Amino acid sequence: MTDNVIWHDLTTLNIEGKGWTDTRGFYDRLPARAEKIVRDPVWNLSRDSAGICARFTSDTTAIHARWSLRKESLAMVHMPATGVSGVDLYVRVGYTWRWLGIGHPATFPDNEVLLCTGLPEGTREYMLYLPLYNGVRSVSLGVPESASFEATPPRTTQPVVFYGTSITQGGCASRPGTCHPAVLGRMLDRATINLGFSGNGKMEKEIAELLAELDPALYVIDCLPNMTADEVAERAPELIRILRAARPQTPILLVEDRTYSNAFLHQDRAERNRSSRAALRQAFAEL
Amino acid sequence: MTDNVIWHDLTTLNIEGKGWTDTRGFYDRLPARAEKIVRDPVWNLSRDSAGICARFTSDTTAIHARWSLRKESLAMVHMPATGVSGVDLYVRVGYTWRWLGIGHPATFPDNEVLLCTGLPEGTREYMLYLPLYNGVRSVSLGVPESASFEATPPRTTQPVVFYGTSITQGGCASRPGTCHPAVLGRMLDRATINLGFSGNGKMEKEIAELLAELDPALYVIDCLPNMTADEVAERAPELIRILRAARPQTPILLVEDRTYSNAFLHQDRAERNRSSRAALRQAFAEL
Repeated sequence: MTDNVIWHDLTTLNIEGKGWTDTRGFYDRLPARAEKIVRDPVWNLSRDSAGICARFTSDTTAIHARWSLRKESLAMVHMPATGVSGVDLYVRVGYTWRWLGIGHPATFPDNEVLLCTGLPEGTREYMLYLPLYNGVRSVSLGVPESASFEATPPRTTQPVVFYGTSITQGGCASRPGTCHPAVLGRMLDRATINLGFSGNGKMEKEIAELLAELDPALYVIDCLPNMTADEVAERAPELIRILRAARPQTPILLVEDRTYSNAFLHQDRAERNRSSRAALRQAFAEL
Repeated sequence: MTDNVIWHDLTTLNIEGKGWTDTRGFYDRLPARAEKIVRDPVWNLSRDSAGICARFTSDTTAIHARWSLRKESLAMVHMPATGVSGVDLYVRVGYTWRWLGIGHPATFPDNEVLLCTGLPEGTREYMLYLPLYNGVRSVSLGVPESASFEATPPRTTQPVVFYGTSITQGGCASRPGTCHPAVLGRMLDRATINLGFSGNGKMEKEIAELLAELDPALYVIDCLPNMTADEVAERAPELIRILRAARPQTPILLVEDRTYSNAFLHQDRAERNRSSRAALRQAFAEL
């Protein structure tokens, strides 16, 4: 018996990880109006689909994926194509989520893969993460014609917003599901909104004002790796003021930078870690 | 003051991770005569420099590296170029080793990078790991003319030999120093010999006979991910017999395969894990 594959466009599903619906491309991370507000590098990075995922429920025994990438460069020298440009499938098992299959990006712009097959019968909830350092023009999921396929109902909980650097965006995760905002989202079973901008998480006022439009359970501010101590001293108080004015009750988590792995021998790196942290603590103390 | 960089070819240093000196290429992992003995894929993979490293002692404040790669493909879709084709620098700190710098492979065949600079004064012991899934024709280290540069004396301890699959060879480590034989080598402060052959760690008799030529502290046999239960049942007893006959006192560690991350839902994968392990335990029980 042949069972035709029926394709479902991801835009018909419940998409998580988008802070705004008024985006230029469907899978952009900032609203269209941000193009004239934020610096060009931030705008360009906002078109990467980091942290965006789709949830669906199906009794399928096989799942196919098609996705069309925006940028021809599928990998970075220190990050594999699977993380930069791949799609990553998880399934809910009891109270947790488990990894099920990775879609290898082999060509530009279009890819089609069989993410899993031979699954035992049963209706399950799935989640597909999109590329971390590439953008997508379109994504579809394919299941056999006989299988059910429905959007999972939206969550009733507020999301967690992460604003940060390349590390937040997902550098250098092997798969889209293994960057820390995605891992934490599964652990907390909450939507997360990834506003990591590689090299460009700089606590800028225009980003602070965009963040203030959101209504999350928590703001995670994790910009120190992209900032000097002077920048932190200048910008952190204003960022916090803007968020606090808009969201008086929302917790704001100020994250210190990671210690550079080789800071024990590179005194300039150790000093950068030390001075940025001191500036952030000072900003907090003076609130 | 200009301080010229003096280049030192790695072949003048104490090289670790080579089981044989009678190799065709200096950085090959099997002896030249193996070309006519082992299957072609094993021979080709043996020319990747996985696990080979060089130890040196220097009072330099900067370290440059030049390396010439054998294969044009610098990365794999699921493994970054840094791990596949990079060089990776560690430094001894007290009783442990710490990471210091990665050489990004940017071009084929030749690369030159500054691995670290601005180090505080002091004589230190360093270790440079070579690419995991590429081979090298030549490698040189550069230090300022005024710096000392010497081979670290060879260790007096026996090495640990790892025979296995892609996982042993280093898939999919981000850097050459982060595959598990390298990590264990630093933890144990011993030389390790990486005889991982991606997709081709199959407990073959000809490899067993080559392994028997070595005189390690421990044989780690980690082939199950590349074998069926029938192959394990057929080959494990002979492999162990050959090693035991040649090295009556040397411990042999039989490693079970890792559970496939998605085996909880893919029954065929769970069954493969189960049956291979049963065959290995049976072989052990019947020794």
